[in-house]
Amino acid sequence: MRKNQKQSKSAIVLLSGGLDSATVLYYALKRGYSCRCLLFDYGQRHKKELAAAEKIARGAGCPVQKVRITLPWGGSSLLDKNAVLPHHKKNSRPAALPSTYVPGRNTIFLSFALSYAETTKADALFIGANAVDFSGYPDCRPGYYGAWNALLKQLGVSVRIKSPLVRMTKAQIVRLGVRLGVPYENTWSCYGGGGKPCGNCDSCTYRARGFSEAKIADPAL
Amino acid sequence: MRKNQKQSKSAIVLLSGGLDSATVLYYALKRGYSCRCLLFDYGQRHKKELAAAEKIARGAGCPVQKVRITLPWGGSSLLDKNAVLPHHKKNSRPAALPSTYVPGRNTIFLSFALSYAETTKADALFIGANAVDFSGYPDCRPGYYGAWNALLKQLGVSVRIKSPLVRMTKAQIVRLGVRLGVPYENTWSCYGGGGKPCGNCDSCTYRARGFSEAKIADPAL
Repeated sequence: MRKNQKQSKSAIVLLSGGLDSATVLYYALKRGYSCRCLLFDYGQRHKKELAAAEKIARGAGCPVQKVRITLPWGGSSLLDKNAVLPHHKKNSRPAALPSTYVPGRNTIFLSFALSYAETTKADALFIGANAVDFSGYPDCRPGYYGAWNALLKQLGVSVRIKSPLVRMTKAQIVRLGVRLGVPYENTWSCYGGGGKPCGNCDSCTYRARGFSEAKIADPAL
Repeated sequence: MRKNQKQSKSAIVLLSGGLDSATVLYYALKRGYSCRCLLFDYGQRHKKELAAAEKIARGAGCPVQKVRITLPWGGSSLLDKNAVLPHHKKNSRPAALPSTYVPGRNTIFLSFALSYAETTKADALFIGANAVDFSGYPDCRPGYYGAWNALLKQLGVSVRIKSPLVRMTKAQIVRLGVRLGVPYENTWSCYGGGGKPCGNCDSCTYRARGFSEAKIADPAL
């Protein structure tokens, strides 16, 4: 009975193709959720992550739903192929928002996920945000997700956002993912759109630090 | 000094082309905000409201930003030209959500508006939601907007959502709008996409009741 109950839970998983969201997908599957993966083409310069996300979802046997979004006002170096991506500054937290911050991005993603969850009657929305090894984005903090769940309560919907990685370090995430069998060789983290990860952007740096601290070789390199 | 301060305030106004949002635009202008109007083409069958919104924005001398959204999962009779729109049921509040409810709609609209407000450094987001003469949508209630402002606080942004009509009846809104000089002849409320308002849907019914109770003739008829 308990097993059946577990199998009947369903979730929407926001899948970017990066390390964190891939781990969250495998985490949700392990917890017994049947998962639908939600992918966003929002004009990101690193479109490569979308192909990675599709491969990961397919590998996990989960259906993919893609949404195309246009932010006509831009507002981020992540949306502008001609902008210079900031190099990671060692041992420092950015004082101001980095230029890679996309205004409202996670809020837009979650609002579409809410619409999808309402339509498919999903029980949970999983997102791989984490507030420890991150780029200083305000939409990756625990308080933000708490406020979202309060909003969902006001809407009278039963779906809730789950961000199980939010307080974990990248090394902890990597160790968890390896235990769960996440195919990290298929993930893409780099903010650049090049053939190989640049190794210099925030995203590459945190990924490398995570694998290094976990004493595990990054299978994507 | 005070006048200058007032003039320097800026706002994003969600403009649908209907009675409520047009009133809110004129309300924000009266309060000294310089306003940008945000319009959404989300596959609504009553696209006519978009032309109405553009006319209203132009008449008020405000720039228009349009955003196109696709909800691939549908989920509402408002998005489906072949669906039968529910007729308004006299003297009753719907027990369940009406089929015209678009899952997540206002949350999606506000998340885009947040992105636009962050990029343009706007001080306020105005929305014409009201919880009195409405169709029972959960995203039109005061508590929902309170929860949104708590979310914005968590994000560390200074912009706040203002929903000045949320506790007003349609008659009160009409009286306010007439005082503010809102060109109601240019607004479009009907959920149907026909040449003339159907007179039967919830939106037509609440509008008619508002003008009737305010003892004002609807200049759009």
